[in-house]
Order: sequence, then C-alpha cells, then structure tokens
Amino acid sequence: MKISNDLYLRASRGEKIERYPVWLMRQAGRILPEYRAVRASVSGFKELAETPELAAEVTVQPVDILGVDAAIIFSDILVVPDAMGLPYQMIEKKGPWFEHTIHSESDLKRLDIKIDVAERLSYVLEAISITKRELNGRVPLIGFAGAPWTILCYMVEGSGSKTFSETRKLLYTNPKLAHELLQRITDVTIIYLKAQLKHGADALQLFDSWAGILGHKQYQEFGMKYIQQIVNAIEGPFTVFSKGAYSALPALMDLACTTIGLDWNMNIEHARSLAGEKKTLQGNLDPCVLYGSESAIEKETLQLLHSFKSQRHIVNLGHGVYPDIKPENVKAFIKTVKNYEI
Amino acid sequence: MKISNDLYLRASRGEKIERYPVWLMRQAGRILPEYRAVRASVSGFKELAETPELAAEVTVQPVDILGVDAAIIFSDILVVPDAMGLPYQMIEKKGPWFEHTIHSESDLKRLDIKIDVAERLSYVLEAISITKRELNGRVPLIGFAGAPWTILCYMVEGSGSKTFSETRKLLYTNPKLAHELLQRITDVTIIYLKAQLKHGADALQLFDSWAGILGHKQYQEFGMKYIQQIVNAIEGPFTVFSKGAYSALPALMDLACTTIGLDWNMNIEHARSLAGEKKTLQGNLDPCVLYGSESAIEKETLQLLHSFKSQRHIVNLGHGVYPDIKPENVKAFIKTVKNYEI
Repeated sequence: MKISNDLYLRASRGEKIERYPVWLMRQAGRILPEYRAVRASVSGFKELAETPELAAEVTVQPVDILGVDAAIIFSDILVVPDAMGLPYQMIEKKGPWFEHTIHSESDLKRLDIKIDVAERLSYVLEAISITKRELNGRVPLIGFAGAPWTILCYMVEGSGSKTFSETRKLLYTNPKLAHELLQRITDVTIIYLKAQLKHGADALQLFDSWAGILGHKQYQEFGMKYIQQIVNAIEGPFTVFSKGAYSALPALMDLACTTIGLDWNMNIEHARSLAGEKKTLQGNLDPCVLYGSESAIEKETLQLLHSFKSQRHIVNLGHGVYPDIKPENVKAFIKTVKNYEI
Repeated sequence: MKISNDLYLRASRGEKIERYPVWLMRQAGRILPEYRAVRASVSGFKELAETPELAAEVTVQPVDILGVDAAIIFSDILVVPDAMGLPYQMIEKKGPWFEHTIHSESDLKRLDIKIDVAERLSYVLEAISITKRELNGRVPLIGFAGAPWTILCYMVEGSGSKTFSETRKLLYTNPKLAHELLQRITDVTIIYLKAQLKHGADALQLFDSWAGILGHKQYQEFGMKYIQQIVNAIEGPFTVFSKGAYSALPALMDLACTTIGLDWNMNIEHARSLAGEKKTLQGNLDPCVLYGSESAIEKETLQLLHSFKSQRHIVNLGHGVYPDIKPENVKAFIKTVKNYEI
C-alpha cells in the first residue's frame, strides 16, 4: 500500500524531504486521556498489549490526536523473553517483574527451545496487521524490539535496577553463559523483527535502554556484537537507539542500519560530525522541555532544529515522553517541527 | 600531625610517589562483617551516622582490615539538606526518603535560614575528630559532601529516581527557584567542608552522583557553576567526582581542584589526554570486576594500571563498592595495586 505521508521513510533513507518528520517515543500511552480510557477497560498493561484490537486502537490514537508522522506499535520489549519461556508481569507503578531469572546453566533449562516465534508473538503481529488496516496508508508503522543486552539485563536481574550489577557480574563470572543467552535472544529477535515486517511494519527500531551502564569494551563485546547480527539480517529503514552509549557512537555509525537514535544528553553536532551523510539521526529534545510553557517549548525545539546541518533528521525526544506531560505541550512541539522550513 | 602513609596526598598534589595509592568508595560499609556487627547494634543507618564514636569506628575499619591508603568519613551526602531543615529517613532496601520536598517558592519556607552549620552537623565533625585521633597519622582522612545539583535532586524528588524528571522539570519551569536553592546548598556546603578541614579532614571529595542525567548546557548552568564556587573556596587536595558527566570532562579539568574522579565507563586515556599533568585522576575499575575470581581481578587491575600514562593517579573503583562483594576480593584488588611498580 502506498503511504501518503512517507516523510519518516524518506528521511530514514536520506531522500529529499519538504520538512522534518516528527514522532515521540511512548506516544501511544498515558499522556493521552483516550489511551487511559482504553487502559481502564482492561485488567492491566499486559492484557492491553496482548489484545490486538486494543493495541491497534491505542497505536493509531496519536496519529489521529497529535498528528505525528509515524505510528509505533503498542507493545513492550519484554514480549521476547516472555516468548522464550520467561514470563513477566507489569506491576503498577513498579515496572516489570520476572518470577524466574537466569543465573546459571541450569536456569537456561527454563527456557523453551525451538519455539515458534510467530505463533507465540502472534498477538503483536496481529496488532500490526490491524493497525496497518486502520492507518490505511496515512503514515508508516514502526515495529520494534529490545536489543539483546537490554533483554539480558531483565532476564538476569528480573526487574529494573539502577546498576544492573547482577547482570554485569555475570559478564565477569560467566561470560560464556552471557554469550549463549545473548545469542539465543538475538536469534529470536531476528525472526520476530522479520515477522513484524512481513505483517506490515514499514520500519523497525531496536531499543538498547541499558547500553549506558557498560564501559566501551564490554559494550562492544556484549552489546554491539549482537546488534550487528540483527542489523545485518534486516532490510529497510532501521533505527538503533543505544541510550547512553556515548563512547559507542563512532561504532554505531558503521552499522548497516539507516538511522541512529540519540538520547537528550548526546550532542547532535558531534553525532553529525561522526555520521557525515551516512546516517539519519533521530532525536533528541530533552523530554523535560515539554513541562515548560508553549513558548519555551517552541524556543527549545527551534534551537534543536537550527542545530541540524543535514536533511537526514527525524525529530523526536531523546527518551520516551513522560506520562504526566500535557497533550497540548506535545502538540506545541509537533507544530513547531511541522512549521519549520528546511 | 605528620601522616606516615601520605601517598594519597602526594598523588593528589602531583608529587613523586613510590606506588599508586588505593582506596574504595563505600569501603566503610556493608562489605565488612565488622561493619555489619556495628550496624546491627543500632536502630538504623541514621543512628550509626549520627553517633560519632560508631561512625569513627566504621571509618577506621577498612584501614585496619583492608589496608587502604586513605580513610573516608562514614556519613551521607544527605546530612546537608537535613541540616537545612529538610530531614530524611534512610529506608532499608529502598534508600533515602524525604517527607517534605521543594517544588515552589512557598516550599522554600520549610528551610531554616542562617543555620549554624557546624552546630547542626557537629556529629560529623566530632566523628572526624575522633577518627583522626584513632588513625593516629597512619593514613589521610577524606571528608566529603554532595554536589549541589545532586542534593537538589533529592530535595525536589524526595527519593531516588531513574530519571529525576521532577527536578529536571523544575529547571525548565522555574529555573529561578532552582538557582536560589542551588545557591543556598552551595553556601552551606562551603561552610560544612571548611569545618571538616578544621576538624582534621586532610582532603575532600564532592560527589555529583546525578551529573549524568543532565545535558551539556544544563550541567554547565545548574551543576558546574556551583561546583566551581565550592572548589574556589577550598584549599588543599580536593576531588570532584561527577558521575556520568562525559561531556563535562574538559570543563572539569579546568576546575581549581587537584583531582577528578572517573566512573568506570569513562576512558582513562581520553581523560588523561584532556588533563595533561594538570590533574590527578581517581578511579576507575568497574566495581563488577570484584565479583570475579582473584586471578581475574588481578588481570583487570593490572590492565587498568598499565593504562596509566602519568604518576598522577589514585586507584579506586569507578563507583562505590557493591555491598555483596567479598572482602577477599577487595584485598586481591588492593594487593595488586600495592605490588605494582611504577
């Protein structure tokens, strides 16, 4: 199906654009009262994510309400360990929690092998199909997965953590186990992302939320190595977002993907000097800017736009939008980008 | 009093040393069974920190037991907001918690003004005096405080946070209030640090634990500006440890302090290239290395030592030692440093 607003896709590929495309990480979520109404009709986050009609409904909401240039499927990166046999719960105000975690070779036996990825994650794939139908070619749909290192963090730690020291401990005490698990996650992720494309996703993004807690060498060995495998296996617009991986930026620019996501602390001019015209950069307004007044939002957004030295940009925040941001403020951000002449 | 092992002080000043000095952030703490025994004799962390004899006892323990080249007074960075009129509790397994927080000008009225800093923090100063007596010149004693930005984070947020988005929100919505509070924290901190020196501290360290959550410009405005005031007001060996402040490294090297602390993700050769011979660098072994075998610890520690291109180094971890690390493993780290010939 032809996509009428394909700015996001053209910017990804480095083609000519009339203006910069804009969307927000976590745009399908608690910022919208319309989302909260759907969310209140089910038992919890997981039921919402696992009900394709509802996941599709909240995925389309920000396209209708905020006017973003891309939709991103409503789901979670933890569906992958879940599919591998390590189920998670999403605990209100606390975040994800796994009853079982992986610390030893014997824990690996908890995981199912030779799983039918498309069958186990059929609820996401079906949500993608429904969303594509409902979008009806208005804007592209982005699919996503967590990067293997970040998924490993949750499978070892069992929940969020400030330091993920259990997982980092494993890298020193049993690197073989870490690599075996990372490879299994990678294999499943590649099948999963290809299935997302097959079901209609127009582009993909890999989230490495905990990239920043590893030093340079360790991130090369336990992070980038697997990201590279995934990127090499996938065609089309693909964004890698390694949050906090400042020292990995030069290596990220050599990946065979179209786009690099930048967090709000990354210097966009420095990133451009590393990327040249090889990569599209996505980001990176500080999400806290959206707490300000509309005029302050306009000012900070214009400052970001003025800093661009290339057309290869997709405008976004440098992190997911915070749930207590007012939709009017998000709209002020989007309006400023849309009115900006390249 | 003459200090017999003054390696730490000489390394701080860039004087000649026979070997690199070594100590660990959080060395006075849960890693030692001897600490846990003292801790079990009181109601909680706060009682321990507020009882000078006991605080002195656990401060000296790692000198006796681990053989570190410096002691650091057992205390907490949150004694400063506490003294300012915003009391905290330390909740087991959860961390610090403030009943009241600062979000508006009217909240500022909760704070006491014109406080007698030395009187309110007399328990820390007395612990320093007792520790100096008990150390009897064996090794230097380090005093410390939190950097104003990190203290602001707790006074606004009221507890730990992954994003400290409430505090970052304040920087956009009410920068005037943020600056007023930062200035008040700075003024108290300068008086407090000077009092620590007067009571016998031989050196000081400023901990900016949440430096890494601000972008470059914001850290200059809300972080470095106040660190600079503090550093300029203090004489003698002084370490500034701005965790995660990668883009601030060049500016940190221009501060009028002797030493810059590096977290475990910072590249020590890059930091040296920025510092030249102007600064001593402190750090930065990944604390998770200490989960490994003794031979792995030796190997990683030697790799760190080999990377030094100057004598101006104080060896430490790149973060506080994790509480479940075995004392034997800490000893293997210390032994490797002590046996290393410059």
